[in-house]
Amino acid sequence: MKAEYINPFLLSTISTFDTMLNCKLERGEPYLKTATSPRHEVSGVIGLSGKAAGMVVLGLGGETAIHAAEALLQERPPELNADVTDAIGELVNIIAGSAKVKLEHLNLSVSLPTVITGKNHSTEFPRKVTPICIPFNSQWGDITVEVGLCENPTT
Amino acid sequence: MKAEYINPFLLSTISTFDTMLNCKLERGEPYLKTATSPRHEVSGVIGLSGKAAGMVVLGLGGETAIHAAEALLQERPPELNADVTDAIGELVNIIAGSAKVKLEHLNLSVSLPTVITGKNHSTEFPRKVTPICIPFNSQWGDITVEVGLCENPTT
Repeated sequence: MKAEYINPFLLSTISTFDTMLNCKLERGEPYLKTATSPRHEVSGVIGLSGKAAGMVVLGLGGETAIHAAEALLQERPPELNADVTDAIGELVNIIAGSAKVKLEHLNLSVSLPTVITGKNHSTEFPRKVTPICIPFNSQWGDITVEVGLCENPTT
Repeated sequence: MKAEYINPFLLSTISTFDTMLNCKLERGEPYLKTATSPRHEVSGVIGLSGKAAGMVVLGLGGETAIHAAEALLQERPPELNADVTDAIGELVNIIAGSAKVKLEHLNLSVSLPTVITGKNHSTEFPRKVTPICIPFNSQWGDITVEVGLCENPTT
């Protein structure tokens, strides 16, 4: 994956959290995803396709996800329920949607989001792809955005 | 989601398991996904986008996934490792790729697959979508394919 493809996702995550949730993210250094990359309780997953094929995973802890949903809905969900998973799906949709605008030459469109919940689940990309993991810190806890993007999709 | 969109995924799952793994699937009745839909240890996830936005989730147990990988690789992986997740990603890629051909008017393309592992994880679609769950039985255990497809994507 080309390094120049990281910035659109990094910037769109920061601006989405800022404008939608009024939450300032502090960015860490992007790195190649490894088997020891952090695992989160909640993963918002959305696909990208067009002249490239990609996948974006927004990972955050259960409490962090509830905080984010509370900021979006102006009401605190009592637990990790469908309000929270809907909110995380919406956030990853906006992050991917804003990033694709900055990658205009790839003519990407976004899939439906899906949200995975479960303690200690892991998300694996195909080995032929080198996904990048972008870590962020927020007042609600750590957040990561993983992006895999492959320019010559076979299908 | 229109009922006519179910058949392409149902048929492509059966033909993919038959031709790639020499595994005959017995189909059950498709139903609307609910909170009590079966949870699996392994979920292969892939997005679809074009004139519709969708997501396909191939769910199967850990042992079932190892059997499927063994049939694909002609060698038994010793555990639920990267060989297995790669194989499941490849299978969901082929299932979605074959189904999109049958849905030509939607001009769909597929994203990268991602494979989730973890006991008792759940996959949630946005509430505005009504995902369909297609159950299958095989000699290796139960398999489900969940499909959400939304014709008027907002982004």
